[in-house]
Amino acid sequence: MDIDIVKNEKKRFVIIGGGFGGLEIARKLVKLNVQVVLIDRNNYHQFQPLFYQVATAGLEASSIVFPFRRNFQRAKNFHFRLAEVKSINAEDKIIQTSIGELSYDTLIISTGATNNFFGNDEIEKHAFAMKSIDESLRIRNRVLEQFEVALSVPAAEKSEQLTIAIAGAGPTGVELAGTLAEMKRYILPKEYPELDFDQMRIVLIEGAPRVLNAMKEKSSWKAKKYLEKMGVDVLVKTRVNSYDGTELVLSDETIIRTKTLIWAAGIKGNYINGIPEEAKVPGNRISVDHFNQIDGMKDAYAIGDVANMISDDRAFAKGHPQLAQVAIQQGNRFVKNMKAQLKGKEMVPFKYKNLGTMATVGRNKAVVELPGMKFYGFFAWMVWMVVHLRSILGVRNKFIVFLNWVWNYFTYNLSLRVIIKGVGNREK
Amino acid sequence: MDIDIVKNEKKRFVIIGGGFGGLEIARKLVKLNVQVVLIDRNNYHQFQPLFYQVATAGLEASSIVFPFRRNFQRAKNFHFRLAEVKSINAEDKIIQTSIGELSYDTLIISTGATNNFFGNDEIEKHAFAMKSIDESLRIRNRVLEQFEVALSVPAAEKSEQLTIAIAGAGPTGVELAGTLAEMKRYILPKEYPELDFDQMRIVLIEGAPRVLNAMKEKSSWKAKKYLEKMGVDVLVKTRVNSYDGTELVLSDETIIRTKTLIWAAGIKGNYINGIPEEAKVPGNRISVDHFNQIDGMKDAYAIGDVANMISDDRAFAKGHPQLAQVAIQQGNRFVKNMKAQLKGKEMVPFKYKNLGTMATVGRNKAVVELPGMKFYGFFAWMVWMVVHLRSILGVRNKFIVFLNWVWNYFTYNLSLRVIIKGVGNREK
Repeated sequence: MDIDIVKNEKKRFVIIGGGFGGLEIARKLVKLNVQVVLIDRNNYHQFQPLFYQVATAGLEASSIVFPFRRNFQRAKNFHFRLAEVKSINAEDKIIQTSIGELSYDTLIISTGATNNFFGNDEIEKHAFAMKSIDESLRIRNRVLEQFEVALSVPAAEKSEQLTIAIAGAGPTGVELAGTLAEMKRYILPKEYPELDFDQMRIVLIEGAPRVLNAMKEKSSWKAKKYLEKMGVDVLVKTRVNSYDGTELVLSDETIIRTKTLIWAAGIKGNYINGIPEEAKVPGNRISVDHFNQIDGMKDAYAIGDVANMISDDRAFAKGHPQLAQVAIQQGNRFVKNMKAQLKGKEMVPFKYKNLGTMATVGRNKAVVELPGMKFYGFFAWMVWMVVHLRSILGVRNKFIVFLNWVWNYFTYNLSLRVIIKGVGNREK
Repeated sequence: MDIDIVKNEKKRFVIIGGGFGGLEIARKLVKLNVQVVLIDRNNYHQFQPLFYQVATAGLEASSIVFPFRRNFQRAKNFHFRLAEVKSINAEDKIIQTSIGELSYDTLIISTGATNNFFGNDEIEKHAFAMKSIDESLRIRNRVLEQFEVALSVPAAEKSEQLTIAIAGAGPTGVELAGTLAEMKRYILPKEYPELDFDQMRIVLIEGAPRVLNAMKEKSSWKAKKYLEKMGVDVLVKTRVNSYDGTELVLSDETIIRTKTLIWAAGIKGNYINGIPEEAKVPGNRISVDHFNQIDGMKDAYAIGDVANMISDDRAFAKGHPQLAQVAIQQGNRFVKNMKAQLKGKEMVPFKYKNLGTMATVGRNKAVVELPGMKFYGFFAWMVWMVVHLRSILGVRNKFIVFLNWVWNYFTYNLSLRVIIKGVGNREK
């Protein structure tokens, strides 16, 4: 069956995935005289950098997701379809989806990345990941439920019930650990006076020699100091060997007993069947040239986390970091190149411009690296907030997030700690 | 296994269910020199009167639920347990729950009411109900998904895909139908330009001779006029005979083809096993005396929707209406009577004071009945909003709900139409 979208004389661009890269492309393409079809398995864009705040009950899910249709209400040449893409027929320029087939003139694959458990099924089964808003809500529910359950387990099991381990000390792991530490300090003793939170450990486990490994050494050091001051156990040069739901065995054979392991230790591209084998590189990424064209495919581009572009720049000789900034800049470059093509001009190769990286550890505690400078503490934290507020889609969302932050800052005490489950349970 | 709650010389009040009645009692009891244990299957209070706005993507779930623990942070004599109550042992004054047993000195059953499908399993299987925040979110997901699906069904099936039927024209059914009608008019054509919303019917089905049957005739007439003007098909003196997920057969043998039936046509008490048989009355309510004491039980009280008190007042000769107001007033009376008992004074029988009833149909359209007066339209709508805002728990929640209402009023256009599912899916 074909997906029923009007076929006119306009060139049809099909975008798979409305993350940072795909959305950037859609927003700019709709201004041209082309047809734009966006396909996503969700009907909303997710603002991934703030997932950890949803997972720790600091923000509502609805404040950091934004429905695509709302965003494109005025674009007559825009079509959205809620669907899962099954495979691509590169020869005939057709994609197969859960709701039928669709032909394209130009294809953009911006499917992003998902959790990588490196083949360890046992960890995958027991750990909680945080690569989608659903998963973030699941962590929120899980964490809150652990405290409720802790009230009724025997004394000997209380500590493992309360303890939370986080694998991976990139920005996600660091931010999560920091927020949980603040929750433990400021909120939990008030809400669970019957529990002894000295029995709760927050353990952050990182394989590399330092946390925030992609940042400068000083930033890593600073972040680690913040975390330790807040009571987080930071273990570097340490990996998770196995986890059965209770016993977490580390690479140095230490055992940590915990009922909750959050996995932020690795990602892999959301690869799609039908892309030429030659284009598949380790980490499930798709090999592209400097114009984001997929190797061995015609009129097909990969953008963002799922794309792997070997840069002349030595820093990115193995591809660019999988960051929102890269995806947005590639999307931007891509649309400019399409415009150039339409005008019969030359395309310009992509060049990544590092605008800076940052991570927040807690109240008044962040690390920020901008080109040529780095700074820490309160000012960095303010910068972090402004940058993130600016990037959230929707005026109302910005406002509500801002409001929550202010509220939280002064009261330490949001009312979002609710366990809402089972929404998707009913099969109908 | 016993639930581990410190047993001291204080009298232990166990409250089952933190709805309007149970919460009112808990808030007042904690001020006395007694121990208060609240047991609920959720860790939050739900503000039921606004479920329909969550179901229609006008409010976030988090704005109308409030975690119990947050509410009682300062009460040292308060204990919350997240649990399901299985049965009551009236003889030994013990309750059996999903997390163990608990003894009580005084028991309060304020378990509220749930959907009543009057034994029709087929309807129960296919219809969507709205008696909890989970169910409201499920309706939101369902309704939004129907539009997405409608894009890819054959032309002959589009109408049944878009059409929504609502059984029961009490306040819930009326408010839901009105809001859906506004959505159809102001929002959907903008977001789904590819769909023809003339094919979407909103059908409100009521067995009684009029909508809002508990209100005065003029209010019913007014509400019906509002609804019809907004494009809702209102069918009175009509019942749902059967529904198989597509074909809805009415009592007059008309068939409505719809993929979505929302059930707001009846409730029954959340009865608990172990209560003496003599106290069970039709509609699964618990028969109580004028002090809310359960017939045939010692030191046990039922409050609110689940309680059935035969009043001397002829208007309530078959029991009081199942409304928040009744639950709150009974809760209030109950605590006063407990205080009286502690002081060796006489208890005072409950007397319901009708403070008024109201329902909102849409923007600037509400019906309000206060003792001695009734009014309609814009002013009624403002009154409805103020009354509901006042009753929502939490300053932040009030503020966010207010903000959403204002935003919605001026833009007709919130960004909450997201389909977030599967949060509870993972079994771990």
